[in-house]
Amino acid sequence: MTDKTKKKSKIYKPKPISGFPEWLPEERLVEQRWFDHIRKVFESYGFCSIETPSVEETDVLLAKGEVDKEIYEIKRIHNDGNDKESRLALHFDQTVPFARYTAQHFNELVFPFKRYQMQRVWRGERPQMGRMREFYQCDIDVINIDNLPLSFDAEMAAVMYEVMEGLNIGRVQMRISNRKILIGLLNSLGIDNPVPVTRIIDKIEKLAPEIINDLLKEEGLSDEQVNKIINLAKIKGTTDNLNALAIENDLMREGVEELNDVLNNLSHLPVDAVIADLSIVRGLDYYTGTVYETQLLDVPEFTGSVCSGGRYDDLAGGFINKHLPGVGISLGFSRLFEVIRQSRPDLLDIGPKSPTDILLYTEDKALSSEANKTAQTLRQRGLNVEVYATVKKWDKHFNYAKKKLIPYIWYVSADNKHEIKNIKTGEQTNANPTTWSK
Amino acid sequence: MTDKTKKKSKIYKPKPISGFPEWLPEERLVEQRWFDHIRKVFESYGFCSIETPSVEETDVLLAKGEVDKEIYEIKRIHNDGNDKESRLALHFDQTVPFARYTAQHFNELVFPFKRYQMQRVWRGERPQMGRMREFYQCDIDVINIDNLPLSFDAEMAAVMYEVMEGLNIGRVQMRISNRKILIGLLNSLGIDNPVPVTRIIDKIEKLAPEIINDLLKEEGLSDEQVNKIINLAKIKGTTDNLNALAIENDLMREGVEELNDVLNNLSHLPVDAVIADLSIVRGLDYYTGTVYETQLLDVPEFTGSVCSGGRYDDLAGGFINKHLPGVGISLGFSRLFEVIRQSRPDLLDIGPKSPTDILLYTEDKALSSEANKTAQTLRQRGLNVEVYATVKKWDKHFNYAKKKLIPYIWYVSADNKHEIKNIKTGEQTNANPTTWSK
Repeated sequence: MTDKTKKKSKIYKPKPISGFPEWLPEERLVEQRWFDHIRKVFESYGFCSIETPSVEETDVLLAKGEVDKEIYEIKRIHNDGNDKESRLALHFDQTVPFARYTAQHFNELVFPFKRYQMQRVWRGERPQMGRMREFYQCDIDVINIDNLPLSFDAEMAAVMYEVMEGLNIGRVQMRISNRKILIGLLNSLGIDNPVPVTRIIDKIEKLAPEIINDLLKEEGLSDEQVNKIINLAKIKGTTDNLNALAIENDLMREGVEELNDVLNNLSHLPVDAVIADLSIVRGLDYYTGTVYETQLLDVPEFTGSVCSGGRYDDLAGGFINKHLPGVGISLGFSRLFEVIRQSRPDLLDIGPKSPTDILLYTEDKALSSEANKTAQTLRQRGLNVEVYATVKKWDKHFNYAKKKLIPYIWYVSADNKHEIKNIKTGEQTNANPTTWSK
Repeated sequence: MTDKTKKKSKIYKPKPISGFPEWLPEERLVEQRWFDHIRKVFESYGFCSIETPSVEETDVLLAKGEVDKEIYEIKRIHNDGNDKESRLALHFDQTVPFARYTAQHFNELVFPFKRYQMQRVWRGERPQMGRMREFYQCDIDVINIDNLPLSFDAEMAAVMYEVMEGLNIGRVQMRISNRKILIGLLNSLGIDNPVPVTRIIDKIEKLAPEIINDLLKEEGLSDEQVNKIINLAKIKGTTDNLNALAIENDLMREGVEELNDVLNNLSHLPVDAVIADLSIVRGLDYYTGTVYETQLLDVPEFTGSVCSGGRYDDLAGGFINKHLPGVGISLGFSRLFEVIRQSRPDLLDIGPKSPTDILLYTEDKALSSEANKTAQTLRQRGLNVEVYATVKKWDKHFNYAKKKLIPYIWYVSADNKHEIKNIKTGEQTNANPTTWSK
């Protein structure tokens, strides 16, 4: 306005911030369609929604250890140092907040507590790694007092399979194991602390066999022990492969029985949708039974698991003196969306740039009241209607509708005659706002 | 598990974090109902959704000045000091991010660009003030190149009125003015810099008349000037009151004409839903025309405005060398939700603790496959069905359904006969999963 030259000198050209994605309106519409679908499936199984604050006390987040490098703390710019506040940090997943929530509101919740949570999480990754530092996760968990039926372990997988099947991301394969099998084997081999071994096996898909071998030996394991562990981790496929295992240990037998039970409860899903895979152990130490990972079979660019989780004996134990076993799975929403957007945009089916069904237009300013009334009638019938405000030569509004991929233009003309034009076909017909439908 | 005494000593009892609210599942269900309604109204007018990252560069947020006290910066805990990264901070509103987004994606957007945005924002308030430090805002804005028809100023108010009417929060009143009226008066009084005076008038509802008087005099205004300003700010009601104004200035006349035009375009709304109120100026300096505030008439505990905004000439000017006028309104979602929750819980109509329509139950474990199939048939028909997994004595599942306020229990019994019980009425009838409806 005032002085154009002066303004030019002040312009700060904004750039994307590495690791913090944002989408164009047409991409966001697809993202919303994904969220709506996921929510609908979650709710159809009776999961209720919760949201927790974006922050937790830093000490709560650090209690799990080994994550401190990834955490963003928040600080008021003008903190005067007088606040005796706890340190706060953005949550890096939804599992710790869920455990804290369950403990804090224990007396007001009904158990088994089935909840879903679809929020942003933050990881303080180094920007040069090209990883996301802010992204959505979609989680479901069931938690109960003292014991939780194994049928929920199958339900979790069934829900997430239904979710992914409806996203149109090609074939997915859920790979399931039970930690008791590997830990049972380790026990039978005289290995008391399973943590270092499970952490190595967790990397079996990413590292060469020799390296896995070397890493296990560095833990002091013998050739025979290493071979037994690696042979176990190679078992994949149906429950038949499991039955062929020489069960040497009670815990191992329990694990195989549980895994068989879960797989049998998922036998209604397509062949190859769910398989046993004993290399799956998950990196997190709190898993104690069933563990899940998921691969995109038609998007090889997506390395790693898109949807993972497992059963835990007592996740909220640090917050409350109750025994609260649970099982949960987390879908890495934003990472999945971004990979599909980059490598399979055909699957995203990106279309219109707005939710508008009809662009309503009149050439006569005196008819603007009639135009608004017509728009309101159509809206009350569930249609999304944008009134094109400027009265200009006819092709302006037509180009606007075309650019936004709005499918219909509605004309309110001087003789109060309504006409509707289908932009794709060019067909134009008379229409009544109280009866017209797509 | 292992050692209960040892565990007890490690328990960290979680407490709420001041200023970061979270809701119980039954409250969250109402919150979701609110969000769904708001989104539906926004989309029915053709607004498209966007989301921006939670952070912006600190310098971008500080460019507007006077807000630095309220900003939370984020820092990686293990920042090694070698990252040559910009400082990042959580956004404190959605207006600056929207302006930045519009400039950054200018060539990919279609103008007029109508967008809505419903995200969390953060303000680094001192905790002892009891204010929210994380909350949702629901914003709509329209922005265009070079000029934007005044009809959008009325549309904004119409959309937000429809939003609030559907939230069941009692009567609301939108109060509208046009900044050109006051600034025109100040020009005619020879006051060149309107900013200090508008900031004082913005506080006219919160401070006693004598204090407003004194503050204006401290700015060097004469008694006559002060009287004229205060008399103007007292004007409230219909457009008739405006017409009685002695128009002394072109800018003022333009403002009155615009305000009349906006009010006339809202005349289809109920009496008292929208009024002229010349004391409304808004604190933010970037508003140049229409300004809005909204009061809850039936919730006097809510002081201040629940839904505010205005027209700006060139909000994105700092980011791009284009003239982009716009108009927008922001609904303070979380603050509104919290006030209604505290002072008018009757209006929230809090009900069930889950979205479940039917709890499905069988006494016979052998029927679990039939139970799952029945549940899936009902889900495909749009019903939310929870399978009660544990086979225990009959009243366990009944109590569970009662506590969660699940309306129906579906029994799959040994002879494969389906029965459904309405928990409220106690009525129990035979039912077929392919035809049953609520």
